[in-house]
Amino acid sequence: MPLYEGKAKQVFATNDPHVLRVYYKDDATAFNAEKRGTIAGKGEVNNLISAALYEELAQHGVPNHFVKLLSAREQLVQALTMFKLEVIVRNRTAGSFAKRYGVEEGKPLTPSLFELSYKEDALGNPPINEDAALALGLATPEELATIQALTMEINTFLQHRFEQAGLILVDFKLEFGTDNTGNVRLGDEISPDTCRLWDVTTGEKLDKDRFRQDLGNVAEAYNEVLMRLGIERPV
Amino acid sequence: MPLYEGKAKQVFATNDPHVLRVYYKDDATAFNAEKRGTIAGKGEVNNLISAALYEELAQHGVPNHFVKLLSAREQLVQALTMFKLEVIVRNRTAGSFAKRYGVEEGKPLTPSLFELSYKEDALGNPPINEDAALALGLATPEELATIQALTMEINTFLQHRFEQAGLILVDFKLEFGTDNTGNVRLGDEISPDTCRLWDVTTGEKLDKDRFRQDLGNVAEAYNEVLMRLGIERPV
Repeated sequence: MPLYEGKAKQVFATNDPHVLRVYYKDDATAFNAEKRGTIAGKGEVNNLISAALYEELAQHGVPNHFVKLLSAREQLVQALTMFKLEVIVRNRTAGSFAKRYGVEEGKPLTPSLFELSYKEDALGNPPINEDAALALGLATPEELATIQALTMEINTFLQHRFEQAGLILVDFKLEFGTDNTGNVRLGDEISPDTCRLWDVTTGEKLDKDRFRQDLGNVAEAYNEVLMRLGIERPV
Repeated sequence: MPLYEGKAKQVFATNDPHVLRVYYKDDATAFNAEKRGTIAGKGEVNNLISAALYEELAQHGVPNHFVKLLSAREQLVQALTMFKLEVIVRNRTAGSFAKRYGVEEGKPLTPSLFELSYKEDALGNPPINEDAALALGLATPEELATIQALTMEINTFLQHRFEQAGLILVDFKLEFGTDNTGNVRLGDEISPDTCRLWDVTTGEKLDKDRFRQDLGNVAEAYNEVLMRLGIERPV
């Protein structure tokens, strides 16, 4: 029995109360779960990409929850107390930003934009500004400053990492939490579910927008990202 | 023929290209104009309150567009190039904030919250954060800093002014523009259309929420605010 089952992952207890086992599913949802489906092999791809990137981020000095890859679909992570915040970084206009503000997709945003959403499905995860997030007690000023600083680091690292793989990191979503000593760590995942990734030459979308927008070849796109990042499947 | 007709005001040219004549109507709209109606005498009350407060704010050092009261429903103002931004200040939870974040109305917010909306009716005036407002070119960083500093001044002044009248300034909306020398000035209006005002003792709403929520005695509430502020009608 999972402790918790989300849209794309199941979370299980382990013998260590500070460690959880995460199982990545093939289930996909979009538009606050109004659209539901399955992407064959997605669980494997996302688990492997996320594990590899979190390991690299840790080496790069970004504290995160990743502990160990267990299998193609499973990893061990530290149990974090998650902030009820989604952190969105936008390097180009796309998605909800383009729609909300009536701008065309793909325009470079320099400097990159930092947005917050209040993570509360029942409210539709509404955008929230920093003052309001503090007023609602979603984080302390110090925690929010740490989240922002880590986010900037992560963006620089990921932009470069994906660029090497011929991919533009258009935007992405992060979630943070605090570990059992109160330190802020990156949690959740980084994958084609949580990033918009466009081919640097053709602009082809290689991320969850293929599912959202019924563009076809969804599983192929996820595999392509795994391959381009040079991440090996466990034997 | 007005140069421009808004939901609650008509704007006319004068002989001076830098000066406009504003006529305050009784028309009321709410929920992005989905609800429409009339509040008898509102035009007079809002014109008189706004004129008096803008004059006091100017004396207090807050540059604004007010030039001169012409009649019970008309005033002269400087022509400003308006920012496509609405500035919202919240001293207590209410309205769209309470609804968006699922919190109860009336909770004090300390420090007061500063929010921006992208003023674009076709998009439903969506909330926008400062980085995004800058990225969309809605203001320069210097202009936004001035807008924020003036907004804080105005909030302190108005909270005190309304408190003296037995009213809690729950939240309010401001709009700014630049004059013909490029200086940032407060434009638009300050009235029971743009402020939430609650009786300090009973909590009774004395503002446009009476119209939005069909609470009755709408015109009476507007008059009550005028009277409590000690603003005289022109003879």
